[in-house]
Amino acid sequence: YGKNTIKFLRLHREGKKHFVKEVEVCAHLRLTSPQEYLEGNNSLVIPTDTIKNIVLVLAKKNGIPSLEEFAIDICNHFMTTFCQVAYVKTYVQEVPWQRLHEDGVPHIHSFICVPDGIRFCEAEQCRNGPLMVFAGIKDLKLMKTTQSGFEGFYKNEHTTLPERHDRILCGELFCKWSYGECKDFDFNCIWKKIRECILEAFAGPPDCGEYSPSYQKTVNCIQMLVLSRVSQVQVIEVVLNNTFYNVVDMKNLGLTNDKEVLVPVEAPYGSCACTLGRKKFFEA
Amino acid sequence: YGKNTIKFLRLHREGKKHFVKEVEVCAHLRLTSPQEYLEGNNSLVIPTDTIKNIVLVLAKKNGIPSLEEFAIDICNHFMTTFCQVAYVKTYVQEVPWQRLHEDGVPHIHSFICVPDGIRFCEAEQCRNGPLMVFAGIKDLKLMKTTQSGFEGFYKNEHTTLPERHDRILCGELFCKWSYGECKDFDFNCIWKKIRECILEAFAGPPDCGEYSPSYQKTVNCIQMLVLSRVSQVQVIEVVLNNTFYNVVDMKNLGLTNDKEVLVPVEAPYGSCACTLGRKKFFEA
Amino acid sequence: YGKNTIKFLRLHREGKKHFVKEVEVCAHLRLTSPQEYLEGNNSLVIPTDTIKNIVLVLAKKNGIPSLEEFAIDICNHFMTTFCQVAYVKTYVQEVPWQRLHEDGVPHIHSFICVPDGIRFCEAEQCRNGPLMVFAGIKDLKLMKTTQSGFEGFYKNEHTTLPERHDRILCGELFCKWSYGECKDFDFNCIWKKIRECILEAFAGPPDCGEYSPSYQKTVNCIQMLVLSRVSQVQVIEVVLNNTFYNVVDMKNLGLTNDKEVLVPVEAPYGSCACTLGRKKFFEA
Amino acid sequence: YGKNTIKFLRLHREGKKHFVKEVEVCAHLRLTSPQEYLEGNNSLVIPTDTIKNIVLVLAKKNGIPSLEEFAIDICNHFMTTFCQVAYVKTYVQEVPWQRLHEDGVPHIHSFICVPDGIRFCEAEQCRNGPLMVFAGIKDLKLMKTTQSGFEGFYKNEHTTLPERHDRILCGELFCKWSYGECKDFDFNCIWKKIRECILEAFAGPPDCGEYSPSYQKTVNCIQMLVLSRVSQVQVIEVVLNNTFYNVVDMKNLGLTNDKEVLVPVEAPYGSCACTLGRKKFFEA
Repeated sequence: YGKNTIKFLRLHREGKKHFVKEVEVCAHLRLTSPQEYLEGNNSLVIPTDTIKNIVLVLAKKNGIPSLEEFAIDICNHFMTTFCQVAYVKTYVQEVPWQRLHEDGVPHIHSFICVPDGIRFCEAEQCRNGPLMVFAGIKDLKLMKTTQSGFEGFYKNEHTTLPERHDRILCGELFCKWSYGECKDFDFNCIWKKIRECILEAFAGPPDCGEYSPSYQKTVNCIQMLVLSRVSQVQVIEVVLNNTFYNVVDMKNLGLTNDKEVLVPVEAPYGSCACTLGRKKFFEA
Repeated sequence: YGKNTIKFLRLHREGKKHFVKEVEVCAHLRLTSPQEYLEGNNSLVIPTDTIKNIVLVLAKKNGIPSLEEFAIDICNHFMTTFCQVAYVKTYVQEVPWQRLHEDGVPHIHSFICVPDGIRFCEAEQCRNGPLMVFAGIKDLKLMKTTQSGFEGFYKNEHTTLPERHDRILCGELFCKWSYGECKDFDFNCIWKKIRECILEAFAGPPDCGEYSPSYQKTVNCIQMLVLSRVSQVQVIEVVLNNTFYNVVDMKNLGLTNDKEVLVPVEAPYGSCACTLGRKKFFEA
Repeated sequence: YGKNTIKFLRLHREGKKHFVKEVEVCAHLRLTSPQEYLEGNNSLVIPTDTIKNIVLVLAKKNGIPSLEEFAIDICNHFMTTFCQVAYVKTYVQEVPWQRLHEDGVPHIHSFICVPDGIRFCEAEQCRNGPLMVFAGIKDLKLMKTTQSGFEGFYKNEHTTLPERHDRILCGELFCKWSYGECKDFDFNCIWKKIRECILEAFAGPPDCGEYSPSYQKTVNCIQMLVLSRVSQVQVIEVVLNNTFYNVVDMKNLGLTNDKEVLVPVEAPYGSCACTLGRKKFFEA
Repeated sequence: YGKNTIKFLRLHREGKKHFVKEVEVCAHLRLTSPQEYLEGNNSLVIPTDTIKNIVLVLAKKNGIPSLEEFAIDICNHFMTTFCQVAYVKTYVQEVPWQRLHEDGVPHIHSFICVPDGIRFCEAEQCRNGPLMVFAGIKDLKLMKTTQSGFEGFYKNEHTTLPERHDRILCGELFCKWSYGECKDFDFNCIWKKIRECILEAFAGPPDCGEYSPSYQKTVNCIQMLVLSRVSQVQVIEVVLNNTFYNVVDMKNLGLTNDKEVLVPVEAPYGSCACTLGRKKFFEA
């Protein structure tokens, strides 16, 4: 019944070169007995202050080689140290600091924040169960300005949406995938590869793109490409929060607007959340 | 696979007196076949634009006597109108407009926004299943400045938190409860009664309060009081996001601070999420 | 060249009854010499950490009888203690905790957060100049559902807005007024009186309201009423960020919508910022 | 007395290649007479709806070659079209869409949002006065993990901050500069050059950095470098909102923390706002 959010920075130096990771960690524990909740007996409760100390101590001792290894490290510590812990889940999210470059030369100790998709991971374990590892990317905003439509949908007396074969497809992506029980992957390398798959599946070939008949289908394409290219991924969930753009009608202003000026429609926006595994199909 | 958020205002007039409800509605549909997702076949898809039109038409035709009745109305419409809908969930949230008063006199058409806890509800139904109704309150911020402590917790080498028997208890509450399948309640009246139970259980008697040995126990007290006083509630979930306050150490400034000046500790904050039903116990 | 934001809680007890003020304080200092900025010489710089300590110590020693008295107290301290300070401005904002009531009975130590307009104040002083006091309210959201229109505006070939004589007037108000150099007012009492004036001028008489021909005119009415009723106010600035609501056109859905269902238009919203003094007229 | 915010997307095609600019535009007008405010006479008022139409029409007709040229275009239109406009200010801000690359190959119609510093500009003009152009960057987050200290500051009985010669310097930068009355610059090229100056002045040489004795001095270095390298800049204002990081004391946890684990101190944070011109010195 304990949970917390800890934000901190782990600095690592090799000679004069600095490496920095700033992370936000949430740890969620469930105890074997809810006695503090039912009876006000706190004797098994691990205070959030203690949880914070443990996270900081582990970061100090073992560093953060990858978010995933750090999340696994925290899970293992709680499971092996506290017999009153029935379940532990650790979420780790990165502040996207990138090394600064001047005229192409990397700076030894300066960084810039580039939030073009936030990396995160999760590790969770029940006592006597396997440790499961998840990773993901969120707040990734993408747009394609053509090769997207929405036609042939169901119509009745409440339908006012016209069919469109050349609209803007723009949205914010959340992707989360499972690595199953495996822990010895090169998590940093795989994460980059998956990010590239997502961009490629969304955009299509650089010279011509690929037609998207709906954002649901684009979500499916992203999942299919990741599963086909990255064997370590067991299941992948994708949520696409779509922003609609309307071509501004300029007829009464005496102009023909050939999809040159568009305004975003803030509400309602569409959202599509699907989960795809290797053998079976889930809907979330 | 469709979801959307629709914000609108429903104005109702009785003579010169105006009544206003501004709501945000999310409707989530699952279709019987994911063919648009797998094959790019949109023929069963109900566009978010159509969903929006339906919600607005229902608000126009039937009004919003209570959030719950409106959510039920929407669910019923989708289930009875579209045979391709396998599941529907409707979430309705209120903008907390209150009638303005001048010297105690209610104004006939002016309102002020008072966000001291936001009312929301949910209705959901699977095809051939019962329609379930939920309601709740969120963003309710409460504080008690004494009669709260945290002692006797588990300690090891990573523990630095001192025991405290007179701390501040401050947090943001989220409560959500189930009415089961019933639909004929006076939802507005019950909601107010439950809100009063929550405040009373958090604060204790007005003249002396009641000691809270942990925020987990306070969560349990809230749930127990609601279940004992409001027979229509089947299950109640409570999440308390706790803000810690530290008494500022003023010794090196030459002063004794007898719990007079405190600073909020923004992270880590504690969170307790529990669900309590009439017969069995769940943990969320 | 120093500025900071300090959030803290001041608890005051009278017998068993508790009184709480949670405030956010920003202090802005300008030094007589910019030598730390130009030459990297820090010898006159007062660190933000020291500023924070001073604010907390003053709160501990003198309490917060009103936001204004506390802001004046801080200004005075900096001016009299540090001869290198050329200018000081203090901003104080309140977290809107209200005493909780159970069946009308006030609770001795429990509070609820009711953000229906946030109270703030400012005090500023240049060395050898007068100490000026300002106060205000912000994030005050009001709506009137009739007695508002917008007609007779300028039209040309780019005009598409229809004239309206019965629209919704809804917006967020920011009001800030000056008390001049005076410091001995009952600031708490005057603030409440001004808040009532604002509500009354916005809404008009409870039984019939008052027609607003534009939100600009409503802003003027608010200013005029405050200046006429509250003699301590020298100058008053009002900003009204207007939210537009459009009546949904339901003709193509086969319905007549008699201003019953409206949707907010998030952008563009209108904004009107005006400052009115006792003798002269300023525009901000 | 009119102001508005308009968000839209301008799409431009050259053959199959697409170019996209998504911008937010605020236009602020002051009229020659405040009669709508004082008398409720709207006959000179230009509705925000008309302003929106004009902005969209100008974007359609002339495109957005640079934010600055677009802002100038809008100013000119209002000044030459409406004789009741006494003053106009236009603010234009960019959504940071960047062309997507796959294996180094640019995509013809896909984009990713990369918010590593937001570009904006302003143009303003009084009737019979010159048109002034400003540009800037905001929300630029930078960090250097060494070569920063804060020593030799003023101390008294309220000082608790220790001197530090090797701290983290981390903050969010806002820079705004004036181009004076000139309008024929290559605004896109100059903006990139200034951004590079800011990064270079903050970080110092890539191989060793440069010691910052205070963030005030770093602000001055940024201004000096921009003014010395970019002759088109007349005046430059820089605001640095500093985030402090504390090295976690791990002594009571039995560990020595050699600046490896640090936690951000959310409040108070420091802020330094300075304006530097070619000949004279202003403080903001």
